[in-house]
Parts: sequence; structure tokens; C-alpha cells
Amino acid sequence: MYWSKFFIPTLKEDPIGTEAVSHRLLLRAGLVHMLTSGVYSYLPLGLKVLRRIERIIREEMEAVGARELFLPCLHPLELWKKTGRDQVLADVMIKFQDGRGRSMCLGPTHEEVITDLVKDFVKSYRQLPVVLYQIQTKFRDELRTRFGIVRACEFIMKDAYSFDRDKEGLKKNYQLMFEAYKKIFARCGLDTLILEADSGAMGGDVSHEFMVPASIGEDHVLLCPSCGFHSGLHGPKEEDGLCPQCRKATLTKQVAIELGHIFQLGTKYSLAQEAYFLDEDGQKKPMIMGCYGIGVSRVIAAIIEKSHDEKGIIWPRQVTPFDIEILPLHASGQDEEIVTLASRYHDELTQAGFDVLVDDREDTPGRKFNDADLIGIPLRVIIGRKNLVNGKVEIKNRQTQEVILVDKHEVIKTLSSFL
Amino acid sequence: MYWSKFFIPTLKEDPIGTEAVSHRLLLRAGLVHMLTSGVYSYLPLGLKVLRRIERIIREEMEAVGARELFLPCLHPLELWKKTGRDQVLADVMIKFQDGRGRSMCLGPTHEEVITDLVKDFVKSYRQLPVVLYQIQTKFRDELRTRFGIVRACEFIMKDAYSFDRDKEGLKKNYQLMFEAYKKIFARCGLDTLILEADSGAMGGDVSHEFMVPASIGEDHVLLCPSCGFHSGLHGPKEEDGLCPQCRKATLTKQVAIELGHIFQLGTKYSLAQEAYFLDEDGQKKPMIMGCYGIGVSRVIAAIIEKSHDEKGIIWPRQVTPFDIEILPLHASGQDEEIVTLASRYHDELTQAGFDVLVDDREDTPGRKFNDADLIGIPLRVIIGRKNLVNGKVEIKNRQTQEVILVDKHEVIKTLSSFL
Repeated sequence: MYWSKFFIPTLKEDPIGTEAVSHRLLLRAGLVHMLTSGVYSYLPLGLKVLRRIERIIREEMEAVGARELFLPCLHPLELWKKTGRDQVLADVMIKFQDGRGRSMCLGPTHEEVITDLVKDFVKSYRQLPVVLYQIQTKFRDELRTRFGIVRACEFIMKDAYSFDRDKEGLKKNYQLMFEAYKKIFARCGLDTLILEADSGAMGGDVSHEFMVPASIGEDHVLLCPSCGFHSGLHGPKEEDGLCPQCRKATLTKQVAIELGHIFQLGTKYSLAQEAYFLDEDGQKKPMIMGCYGIGVSRVIAAIIEKSHDEKGIIWPRQVTPFDIEILPLHASGQDEEIVTLASRYHDELTQAGFDVLVDDREDTPGRKFNDADLIGIPLRVIIGRKNLVNGKVEIKNRQTQEVILVDKHEVIKTLSSFL
Repeated sequence: MYWSKFFIPTLKEDPIGTEAVSHRLLLRAGLVHMLTSGVYSYLPLGLKVLRRIERIIREEMEAVGARELFLPCLHPLELWKKTGRDQVLADVMIKFQDGRGRSMCLGPTHEEVITDLVKDFVKSYRQLPVVLYQIQTKFRDELRTRFGIVRACEFIMKDAYSFDRDKEGLKKNYQLMFEAYKKIFARCGLDTLILEADSGAMGGDVSHEFMVPASIGEDHVLLCPSCGFHSGLHGPKEEDGLCPQCRKATLTKQVAIELGHIFQLGTKYSLAQEAYFLDEDGQKKPMIMGCYGIGVSRVIAAIIEKSHDEKGIIWPRQVTPFDIEILPLHASGQDEEIVTLASRYHDELTQAGFDVLVDDREDTPGRKFNDADLIGIPLRVIIGRKNLVNGKVEIKNRQTQEVILVDKHEVIKTLSSFL
């Protein structure tokens, strides 16, 4: 891909009104655009990152037997009245009456809708377990939107739901999801803290949160610097306490962001919505449910919070929008040999399976270097006249800032060995 | 993939209340589920079809230089007031006030939002042309929803937008889109009629509709049975007229469904929203816009309308959810040799790049044959005891109903030669 044919509107200056590094860099690197407070568009570069994260999530969901579907945004409010969550979530729910007088809402989550769907089809224990997931937009009427895409009115979530015959089935699916979540976050380059948590508005007994320490967080965790023990912060009394595992160490309080939350829901929804099945013994029983969410938009913000420097983003390999950026540098005007070489590298690296971006703009080397640091592609090939007279080009690692000089014929081979 | 591990809730009986064949088959084959009138979920099999169509669209959009982004569903009504379309589209627009008192609406289309985005970034003729597209959910407050996913309150569209310096640029991008649309529909197995059309609520001078004759249509076209001449039906006087090209032939009126509509918008939005750029001559000029829509959900319905028989759907190769279905048949209980062979074919065909479904349910051959006809996978491998004693299995073509007997060791080779 060529910069001039893509759409990467980087900003020369820091945007105003951003509290968080990730929010600032998302805007400045041309990844997102704000339509109105709490509502963002994903620009082509941001969408590429989103798609890479979605792909990791899909692979891990499919690996544990979850199947993808796509549920609607528009929900009849009637359905939410069955579980009483039209009241519980009243503050964040966007409601309206449609032209034919139906009370509708925009889905802030999908437990009610998936239960309604599964109960229409699943009648017998033979059809269980069923595990379904989607990646879909959610809506919340947030009064205090914050940190860009972190706490927004419209955001992208992966939500999965399991339906089982019994508690053993639920526990098995819960454990599979638990392990899948660990893999997903690890593949995104994130170290998560896993906390037993309160089930809140979701209901159910057991739940776990997947948190990443980051200044954009709105939650707190207590961490032991000696042994790595951590726990959620549920009240002021826990603050400054001792670590229960190594008695002398003091727990430190840290801000963290919640990226995932999984719940053993039990029968809350199946009872309220009459999602019954006939068991082997001929008895009518409520399905035993679990639900499993990941804030996909939040994952992007968390990655940037964790992986950046003063110059810009440093994408981990697995989620970078492009693998390699090629910078043809021109002292004045277009240098034919450099242009040709850039386009040859582009074609050969693409052929070799890499996703390659060429900054073909007629711009100064300075601007190109700054933008390359800003958008944070892991590896960079710099083609300049000074080195080219000796038959060399530079390869630069965005993270380590390490630069090596390579023979111009060895570029493909060298890069292939890196990736 | 195995049927027992997927989620394909086929219905034994026709659902009630469906006027259209496609609506009936979408429900019966377990492709979609109705949440409430005009609002549908895509089940895993339906989502696979949707993804295949989306992939064709993306490939053809990228081929003409359009870049994908993802715009929000929530729009500030303020933006729509600038173009006056809060009034023009008032009947179908879903509006609400959020918690902080902002007047918002759900996007029925995205001209206002994309213009707002592009004007923030594009300041100079050097940055033009810009062509962007998205595949995103749209919302319409339809009083009379019809034909399932055809006229719904929530539906999936591909919408592209071009921004040019001048009319020549617009015409060039319009022509590229025109050709891309022909390819997209052809690849979906659809013969489209292309009509010059009225620009309606979109505005602008020139527009073309891509229509497919189908009983679910809500438009009409006049067709000449002799020469293929066709035109839109704009008034009763045209009915029963003569074909202008072959003077003696009478035009016949036909119901058709609109799948695509492209518009040369000109400056309607850029003037109203002040989307100006500085041209080479230093003059401030409004960008010249085009917009290009495809009703993605509708494409699915149109394909089914065109490609089915009394037993079910017949998927064209390019959009089928699976390439091959394997039916292991059991007279009574599980036949080990048949189970093993089915799983071997599954693995080897998957290895060879096919998307394979095995109906591994413990069900009667009759039920399996009926469901296979219903879900309409193009090629079917039938493994039954009767043929297997002679070392043979059957390969059946869903469309032609042709059956050939093949040596059990020749299955992969034979199928590879078909596809």
C-alpha cells in the first residue's frame, strides 16, 4: 500500500482536550476521528488495527468451540422488562418509541436477545451446550465520556454466551473462556491481572475481570511488588494493607483498566425469559448460562498506553496495521532510483506475505521520520541517497531504535529473518 | 466443521407469515432469526454468507482505490440540520435526546458524517481525490417492514463516498464504481439491470440504479423481450409502450428489487457543510462528491430469490457458506467405517482449501437429505453402506441434482476437479 493512496491524516500538532496518551495518539496518528463527544469513527489505519485484534479474538473463540453470529442493535424494550434490566440499566440505556409506537432501546449488552434466540431453537439436552459470540457495536448513554474510545457512547465489544445443561457444563465452558481470554490478551501483547469480581448488573455467582494497569483505568487493584499477588480494591480498608502471601510486603494501589469480564450467570436470564429444555430424565429445566465480554475498542487504547514513547505509538507485531514501512527519501524532487527501489521492495515484501506501507509523499525526510515514529510500524526500511551510493539501505527497529545498514540486495532476506 | 458443533437450527415446517420465498428460506434454513418485526439476527450460517458477499465487495472496492473505514451509528442531529435532511428524511429517521440533552439520530445513511470527517482533514487539491467506504448497519423507522431482511428497520449496507477537485474527477470515480458494481453483482451470481434513475433525497444530477427482477421487488422496470432494452417505470403512460429500439416489440412490465444505487452528488453536501479545499490556483472551492450504496442484506435475499427450488436454497459457488457438505448415513446406530471416512474427507478437503460441513447428527437419512437440500451447499458427498460395500460413494450436485458414483479413494481428486 502507498501512503498517497491510503488515508492517514496525521496531525502535526497535539489535539487539544485529550487527557490520555492513547487518546492523543489515536487522534494524532490518524487512527480515529471524533464525530461528537463519545462518538468516534475508525479511519483506515485504525480499522486495520481493529481487524487484527478481532481476528485474534475470532481465532481463540473458534478454538474453544464458540460460533459467531450477529445480533441486532435495536431491541424491543419489552424483552428487557422480563429481566427487570430496563430498570437496572435505565441510566445508560438509549430508549425511543418507533413510528408504530413500539418501545425500543439500543443494546448496551445482549443477554436478553441471545436468550430469546436460543430458547426458540434449543428444546432438548441433546442440543446443549451451545456457545455463541459476536463482535458488535454497543450503545451507552454515558454522561461522562472519557479517554476517547475507552468510555464512549458507542463502542465495539466481543460478547460470548454459553448455554449448558448443568453447572458442570457451565464450569467447563467458563474455564475454556478463561484460558481463551488469557491467550487473547497475551497475543495482543498485554499482561493482564485477573481478579475475582462482583457480578453487578449482570447477576450470577462467580465472575472474573481481566485488568491491565494503565493510567486510563477507572478501577483500582492492589499489587504486591514482591510476589505479584494482586486483588481488586473493594473498600478503603484494604488500602495500604499487607500482602497475605509475603507478610512483610505492603500492597500498592494501582489504577487499572478493565478489558474483559466473564460471568457464571446461572439461571437468572433463563428463568426470567423461560429458556427451558427437556433433560434426559424428561424434566423441564432452565438452561445454565455464562457470558463473556471483551471491550475491543478498549484493547486498542490499552495497547497504546502500554506501548509508546514520546514520539508515538510502538505497535506490537501481532496487532500492527502494517508490518513494514518503507521510506524513500528525496533531497529535492523525486529520485528515480529510490522510487524504483521502494516500489520493488513493496512488491517483493508483499509477495512474501508482509503488509507493507510506502510513504511515497513528496515530503521532507523530517516529516516522514516524524510520521513513521508516530504511526509506529515495527520495522522501517529507509532508502536515502547517502547510503545508496554505497549500495546500502537502513533498516530501523521502531521499538529499540536500532539501525542496521544492509546491502540493498539483502533487504528482503534480512526482513524475512526478523519477522 | 461438524453440524453438531455449529449452530444450524433448520425448521421442519415452513414459518408462518412470510410473503417471500427468500424470507421463508432464510428462516427455515437457519440463516436468520427474527427478534421483532423488521429486526433480524444473522445466525452462523447466514453470517458466513454475509461475510462472503462482504469479501467480494471489499475486493472490488479496494481494486478501484476505495479505502475502508468505519463510521458511527450515532449522529448529532445538528449535522443533519446543515443539509436540511433532518426534514427530508424525518419519516424514517430514528431520533432521541441523550442524557446530556443532545439531539441525536441513528444514521439512515452517512453523507453528512463522511463530509464532516473529510473536511477536517482535506485542505488542498494535493490531497484529492479521496474515496472511502464502509460496511455498516443502517437504521430506518420503517412503518411497513416487508420481505424479511429486504425492507427492515436495521440492515447492512456498503456505502462509498468520493471527493474530487472537479467534475472530471467525479466522472472518473463514478465510472470506476459503475464497473466495480457490475463485477460485484456478477460475482454474486446476479444479472442486474442498470437504470438511469432519479436522485431523490440524495440530491445531485446523475444516478444509476442496479436492479434485479424478483418478486420481492418494490420497483418496476420495462423490459423488451426481443432486444433486452430496459428502462425504469416513471409514470403510467410508459406502460404497454413500444420498445424504442425494435419498433414492433411491446415492453413488458416487471417487478424488480434495487440492490445498488450510485449518485453524482456534486456540491450539495460540500456547500452545506463547508467542505472546501484550496485549488492549484489558490481558489477556495467546494469538493465534488459522489456516493455509492449497496444493500448487502438485500443481496442475500435476491440471490435466494433467483437461486432456489421447491426443496430449498441453491447457493452459487462464490457466496455459499460451505463449499462441500458430507453426509455420513447410518441405517441404525453409528457405522464406524462411515464415520471415519467422513472425518477423513473433512480433514483432507479442508487441507485442500475447501470449506467443508459434515452432517454428523444421529438422524435419519431422510432428515439429512432434506436439510442438505434446504441449506443448499453446491456439492454433496453421500457415504452410505449400500455403495460402500462396493468401495463407492456418491457425489451429488445440488443444482443439477446429478449424482455420480465415485471410488471412495477418488473423492478428493474428483471434487478438486469440479471446483
